[in-house]
Amino acid sequence: MKIGTVTGSVWSTRKADCLQGQTFLVVETPDGTVVAADQVGAGRGDKVLLVTGTVAARFCMESPIDAAVVAILDQEGRHVSP
Amino acid sequence: MKIGTVTGSVWSTRKADCLQGQTFLVVETPDGTVVAADQVGAGRGDKVLLVTGTVAARFCMESPIDAAVVAILDQEGRHVSP
Amino acid sequence: MKIGTVTGSVWSTRKADCLQGQTFLVVETPDGTVVAADQVGAGRGDKVLLVTGTVAARFCMESPIDAAVVAILDQEGRHVSP
Amino acid sequence: MKIGTVTGSVWSTRKADCLQGQTFLVVETPDGTVVAADQVGAGRGDKVLLVTGTVAARFCMESPIDAAVVAILDQEGRHVSP
Amino acid sequence: MKIGTVTGSVWSTRKADCLQGQTFLVVETPDGTVVAADQVGAGRGDKVLLVTGTVAARFCMESPIDAAVVAILDQEGRHVSP
Repeated sequence: MKIGTVTGSVWSTRKADCLQGQTFLVVETPDGTVVAADQVGAGRGDKVLLVTGTVAARFCMESPIDAAVVAILDQEGRHVSP
Repeated sequence: MKIGTVTGSVWSTRKADCLQGQTFLVVETPDGTVVAADQVGAGRGDKVLLVTGTVAARFCMESPIDAAVVAILDQEGRHVSP
Repeated sequence: MKIGTVTGSVWSTRKADCLQGQTFLVVETPDGTVVAADQVGAGRGDKVLLVTGTVAARFCMESPIDAAVVAILDQEGRHVSP
Repeated sequence: MKIGTVTGSVWSTRKADCLQGQTFLVVETPDGTVVAADQVGAGRGDKVLLVTGTVAARFCMESPIDAAVVAILDQEGRHVSP
Repeated sequence: MKIGTVTGSVWSTRKADCLQGQTFLVVETPDGTVVAADQVGAGRGDKVLLVTGTVAARFCMESPIDAAVVAILDQEGRHVSP
């Protein structure tokens, strides 16, 4: 997964049927801008966890998407799980 | 997904049978040029949403493609869905 | 998909059984050199369409490959499908 | 797979249900920072093997993740298996 | 596929169960260092063909790996298959 920041969203009237009902967020990452389906109700300014590739579509929903926001980060700390 | 702009299309007489009937658009993205199957009737100059990888082939069609134009963007705003 | 140019081929006597019978072309792309299974009888100098990732293996054949040449381009024009 | 070093972890209260119970490590790699699900109890400073893409989710668990830490390296030597 | 050169191997005592019995080679490619499961008995200095992504795991074995050495190259020539 990658860490990114939500900067906005995109809108489309003319899209593939299978994309209906999805909210697409614009997420800035160190690797560039990604448009990702929102799975957690993220908003502008949120620091989020981004899943990309086939997995984004297969586990949480059944839409033809290749990127999904799957978590809003509380903090990015230095704590390591025991 | 990535945001790109349609700049043209490619033609091929000699191609794998499974590619018949597809329209392939040339899409310019920040990551370079991608050739993508058209799913929404996009044309030159359209700002589009591009899905890449396995998902492009699995959800909207059954052709051996790794990139698809799945939406024409209305606007890329700063509005965040509630 | 990516557009590339065939510059040669590679040979291997010692390879995984599942790769037997495949022709592997060396294809130069803007992203670097890729070795891809030939699906259309492409030759040196041909401008081709390259499919990468899982899709390359799943739709046209059943070999463990991650790149395939699936079309020889006639021309890369500026015509947009109606 | 890629070799990386664990530098910390991330926390999220608001995440997709399917991510519950996973520990997410921050791993630095030559290609940038990746957040990966821990499969081996790795901690800060460990040099680890990182699997990315669909495979990360399919073989060791069933969560919608695209990166997993699957091994802690003993040493990265120059020994080649016979 | 990518062409790379084997430079060594990595060892791990603490790893996911599903990785037992695999030999992991360090392969240098134009895109950086990759750790790949050996499928052909390659050794240090061998010029090899590297398959990456889901395909590496699905076709030749059933381990959670994302890269595999699937062939040792005889030569990288300029000959094009007829």
